Amino acid sequence: MKSKTVPGAGTSIDELPLRENLRGQSAYGAPQLTVPVQLNTNENPHPPSEALVADVAEAVREAARNLHRYPDRDAVALRTDLAAYLTLQTGVALDVSNVWAANGSNEVLQQLLQAFGGPGRSAMGFVPSYSMHPILASGTQTEWLPTPRRADFTLDVDRAAELIAEHDPDVLFVTSPNNPTGHSIGLDDLRRVLDAARGIVIVDEAYAEFSSVPSAVALIEQYPAKLVVSRTMSKAFAFAGGRLGYLAAAPAVIEALLLVRLPYHLSVVTQAAARAALRHADETLGSVHELAAQRDRVSARLSELGFSVVPSDANFILFGRFTDAAATWQCYLDEGVLIRDVGIEGHLRATIGLAAENDELLRVSAALAATELTEHGSAERGSANTTSEERQ
Amino acid sequence: MKSKTVPGAGTSIDELPLRENLRGQSAYGAPQLTVPVQLNTNENPHPPSEALVADVAEAVREAARNLHRYPDRDAVALRTDLAAYLTLQTGVALDVSNVWAANGSNEVLQQLLQAFGGPGRSAMGFVPSYSMHPILASGTQTEWLPTPRRADFTLDVDRAAELIAEHDPDVLFVTSPNNPTGHSIGLDDLRRVLDAARGIVIVDEAYAEFSSVPSAVALIEQYPAKLVVSRTMSKAFAFAGGRLGYLAAAPAVIEALLLVRLPYHLSVVTQAAARAALRHADETLGSVHELAAQRDRVSARLSELGFSVVPSDANFILFGRFTDAAATWQCYLDEGVLIRDVGIEGHLRATIGLAAENDELLRVSAALAATELTEHGSAERGSANTTSEERQ
Repeated sequence: MKSKTVPGAGTSIDELPLRENLRGQSAYGAPQLTVPVQLNTNENPHPPSEALVADVAEAVREAARNLHRYPDRDAVALRTDLAAYLTLQTGVALDVSNVWAANGSNEVLQQLLQAFGGPGRSAMGFVPSYSMHPILASGTQTEWLPTPRRADFTLDVDRAAELIAEHDPDVLFVTSPNNPTGHSIGLDDLRRVLDAARGIVIVDEAYAEFSSVPSAVALIEQYPAKLVVSRTMSKAFAFAGGRLGYLAAAPAVIEALLLVRLPYHLSVVTQAAARAALRHADETLGSVHELAAQRDRVSARLSELGFSVVPSDANFILFGRFTDAAATWQCYLDEGVLIRDVGIEGHLRATIGLAAENDELLRVSAALAATELTEHGSAERGSANTTSEERQ
Repeated sequence: MKSKTVPGAGTSIDELPLRENLRGQSAYGAPQLTVPVQLNTNENPHPPSEALVADVAEAVREAARNLHRYPDRDAVALRTDLAAYLTLQTGVALDVSNVWAANGSNEVLQQLLQAFGGPGRSAMGFVPSYSMHPILASGTQTEWLPTPRRADFTLDVDRAAELIAEHDPDVLFVTSPNNPTGHSIGLDDLRRVLDAARGIVIVDEAYAEFSSVPSAVALIEQYPAKLVVSRTMSKAFAFAGGRLGYLAAAPAVIEALLLVRLPYHLSVVTQAAARAALRHADETLGSVHELAAQRDRVSARLSELGFSVVPSDANFILFGRFTDAAATWQCYLDEGVLIRDVGIEGHLRATIGLAAENDELLRVSAALAATELTEHGSAERGSANTTSEERQ
């Protein structure tokens, strides 16, 4: 068969009537490279057990008999299971009316911005943080108000309250633990943020299971008209491939999301697979303690080697300082270790992997510690207000 | 265990800082009722074969081993398979660069509006048509410009070209076959519409497999900078529960969608299940001819009974005239037959089901034909500019 140019191949994106704000942009996303040690997207390195795989397959087999019919539009059974899990995990008794789910927490957050943000409205975040927040704001035409964290990446709550009062954002993102820096925010600080805010406050708890700080879910009863807690099955749950994000809030928030969600957004297959994975929560979450122990080991060793390590409450570590983070990132990659350049000057982020993967990370780090690429010991920090982070 | 009120249960949606345009709205969607004969959402009534179910389950079992990892963000293998299917179905040689996929055609259309519509831009459609088009426009803050079809629901192409020139929409929806009326648009007429348009023209071919009119895919080469053809696996493919919509266009259009899509929007499970279903395309699409024959039988019998039947090129029939369509809809439901009140005065829409289901539809119709609920023979038609249609 002779090679043939496909229809429209000669037309460039510049010839399309694209929205002005998208012109010249490039598609966002971490490189999807196949390397021996992948520590770049904060996945749980533990593959699902054979029992979980079998349960997912059987659940999908059963659900597939109805593939010709639309799914339950409101995913009631799945949301009920998620509520039961959150009740157990947080100690706060929730039911299906408190929980919403979508294809990854990105879709959950997009729906929240559609309902409570949008044109003429604003969203504030404390940067550096999860870089999808500004992208989702932009995608929903919500004005993005980035406000800086302290130089050590912690949240200055007094200053935050002032800025909230000054800018009065319609939506406020608080990420806890914060990605890519790893800090959590305690409930007392969170109350002060909530008291200062008029709009919706989204506490993004994508990494909550790795943290010992209590969940913001405990505050929903006190702040029902403004607090939303988003979660994901991508991280601790080792379900990144299944794409299941969810949130807990007052039932009225879920009613609001029903007004903006695409109908039948969650397939029967996704609903069945996620429910099967939730039945294995105990075994999956068993890896969380091990990963936390690995994180502490890697942090300690990186510090010993002279790196500056940001204290982490999650399954990743931000460390530095590097004279040229991009060049150092390449050095790790050349050694078969893919970590993440999140756009914070002098820093890189490494996901905590299996013990052997972490050993590789530390091996390359030790070699680098001897080179002039690093400038550990430097207390000075550069601007840390921008980040380009992977999606949850 | 004593019953407990859940957190936030006392808060009403009116107390939330909801966007003004959403206030007072109610969540959209066809009633999801369990009745003996469900002919309301244009599903394919044939359940998947045992072979397809088994193949989906095994494909998901294999994919589930990687559930802890993010999916291929660009779904290359699935898009390659979809391109091969479209090439076979339309006779136009496409490859992966021509095809995009998302969770249902609703998400595909939402992404198109994010890229080419949005605040300050407009989208035009010829109504009555698929009622998600205005809802998606509203959700992306795109001004909606509904323009009426002829009284017999066909498209007046001369008038359409004038209105396109007058209003210059950024996005134009042409649904072929049109839902809920059933007409297709031929390629010559489509060329005239394309020639008149400056913006993106989305030909929504959700029901294309049921039609004998050639696909608009044949025109991509001629109109690469404006034509997009959207499709779904929900209808002919009997994959409504799997949620897989897709489109064909020039590669530049797919590049544009990469700028607005949520990263990792398609799960490994969805990608694997859809690819398995595509391997069974021949067997699934075998039902299309049978459904077309059933459609013609039901149309002929309804006409014999004195109903006014809109000629259909799809797997549904719009018919009337009813003095009170809502009351007649209830009469069908009381007899165990769920059809659809799409908001067109004097009309109801029935999906073509299995032979026995169609017999039930005709049995109830015959009984109704004798009552005063119907006023067949009336040539006069009311306004037909509004519709509230199910989601694809």
